[in-house]
Amino acid sequence: MTGKTVSRREFFGEVAKLATGAALGVTLVGLEARSEAEEGTWPWPYVQLDLEAVKEKAYEIFPRGHCMYAAFGALVLSMREKGIDERYEVLPLEMMEYGKGGLMGWGILCGALNGAAAFISLVSKDYGKLIDQLVGWYIKTPLPIYRPLNPKTKIKAQSIAGSPLCHVSVTKWCEASGFGSKSPERVERCRRLAADVAAKAAELLNMALAGKAVPPWSPSKSVKGCLKCHGPKGEVKDVFGKMECLMCHPGMGKSHY
Amino acid sequence: MTGKTVSRREFFGEVAKLATGAALGVTLVGLEARSEAEEGTWPWPYVQLDLEAVKEKAYEIFPRGHCMYAAFGALVLSMREKGIDERYEVLPLEMMEYGKGGLMGWGILCGALNGAAAFISLVSKDYGKLIDQLVGWYIKTPLPIYRPLNPKTKIKAQSIAGSPLCHVSVTKWCEASGFGSKSPERVERCRRLAADVAAKAAELLNMALAGKAVPPWSPSKSVKGCLKCHGPKGEVKDVFGKMECLMCHPGMGKSHY
Repeated sequence: MTGKTVSRREFFGEVAKLATGAALGVTLVGLEARSEAEEGTWPWPYVQLDLEAVKEKAYEIFPRGHCMYAAFGALVLSMREKGIDERYEVLPLEMMEYGKGGLMGWGILCGALNGAAAFISLVSKDYGKLIDQLVGWYIKTPLPIYRPLNPKTKIKAQSIAGSPLCHVSVTKWCEASGFGSKSPERVERCRRLAADVAAKAAELLNMALAGKAVPPWSPSKSVKGCLKCHGPKGEVKDVFGKMECLMCHPGMGKSHY
Repeated sequence: MTGKTVSRREFFGEVAKLATGAALGVTLVGLEARSEAEEGTWPWPYVQLDLEAVKEKAYEIFPRGHCMYAAFGALVLSMREKGIDERYEVLPLEMMEYGKGGLMGWGILCGALNGAAAFISLVSKDYGKLIDQLVGWYIKTPLPIYRPLNPKTKIKAQSIAGSPLCHVSVTKWCEASGFGSKSPERVERCRRLAADVAAKAAELLNMALAGKAVPPWSPSKSVKGCLKCHGPKGEVKDVFGKMECLMCHPGMGKSHY
């Protein structure tokens, strides 16, 4: 690298000059007339998206970077197509490759949820409510729902994850379908699931943008029961969380009081 | 919003013109001379970072957006200070707020790991190896290690998470320290832990950049034992993952064969 490095102020200043230059006759939406204070304007703009188009895009790009990449990428590419803010051009989709297999195959957080949540946090100050709804829907819905027009691999089975953990979600589907955890059928399942999750995120964002109330989400009765003692206001107060406790702590009914 | 929206090609084209303009006499490093094909150049550039400075920055910014924001933000802000690529200016730190409390308080993936992994995926094609090392270190190291010069709250306890799950990591520390899951002391613990995780990511990236071999990581004997049957090549093949199986599946020793 050679030449003088420009400061943040200089860079945005010159872009603003460029944007207002009569010789160009164009507007750099998003970067236009952004003052020093506004450089980091957040949340980024969002416009209504067509859910089927989002699904198709997530399904299409999945092979390039897997689940987190596909969910995040479908939403960002949709924004690029809308041409509403040039910053979307700079946002690197590859940054989200790490989320695959619940963080590099560790089986932790479902990468589709991770990617969709990152996008929601990018475009809405209400990300908390929306992400609760997204995860709440994910854990109780038979997935995948999406049926691509030209599927790479044919699959039929659906399963209810009951958990946002990649490992649990994948294993439940393997049990329901009989296919192995690294089979092409399981990959196809996660490819369709990434499409479903990206579209659900868009559906929630569309609702929020249209001024429709997103209903509040709350943990199950079972979780609330555990948190009576273990939650921040209970006697033991050693836990916060919203996942189903009894999935990993079986036999922890009233008997352990 | 008014005015004509410019295309990606037009935008980068004009920036390139601007960068080479003699009147300006500056170079827009990173965006400079980037052709259509190179627009999405990845990975982004990384330079050696001072680990103590990364820790200080993560600790400082934690209150603005919590764990994922702090780990990711400390690394991105360090790159901004280095002035090596103007794209870092556009990357929004707020996008990472969603990771707090293991995804909006769900207790899933430790947000510090989530944020550090996103940064690693942004700057290195070897993200897989590096993230395995980062998580492998996290689950077996007594944390937090960082001692800020001017701590917001005084804490002493360390704990070994044994898991990358926020819920497990937090609860182990609550048990070791006696403090509640929503206490100021627990928040201080996660604030210091975010500093430790961001610095560990920088340490691994520094090694990779210096051409030092990052040792391969592999799951524990116990996990390998479970995967003999449950893994992709086993008889049951319903699982992939690297987390310790027996933490959530106690009593699953040889007795369940």
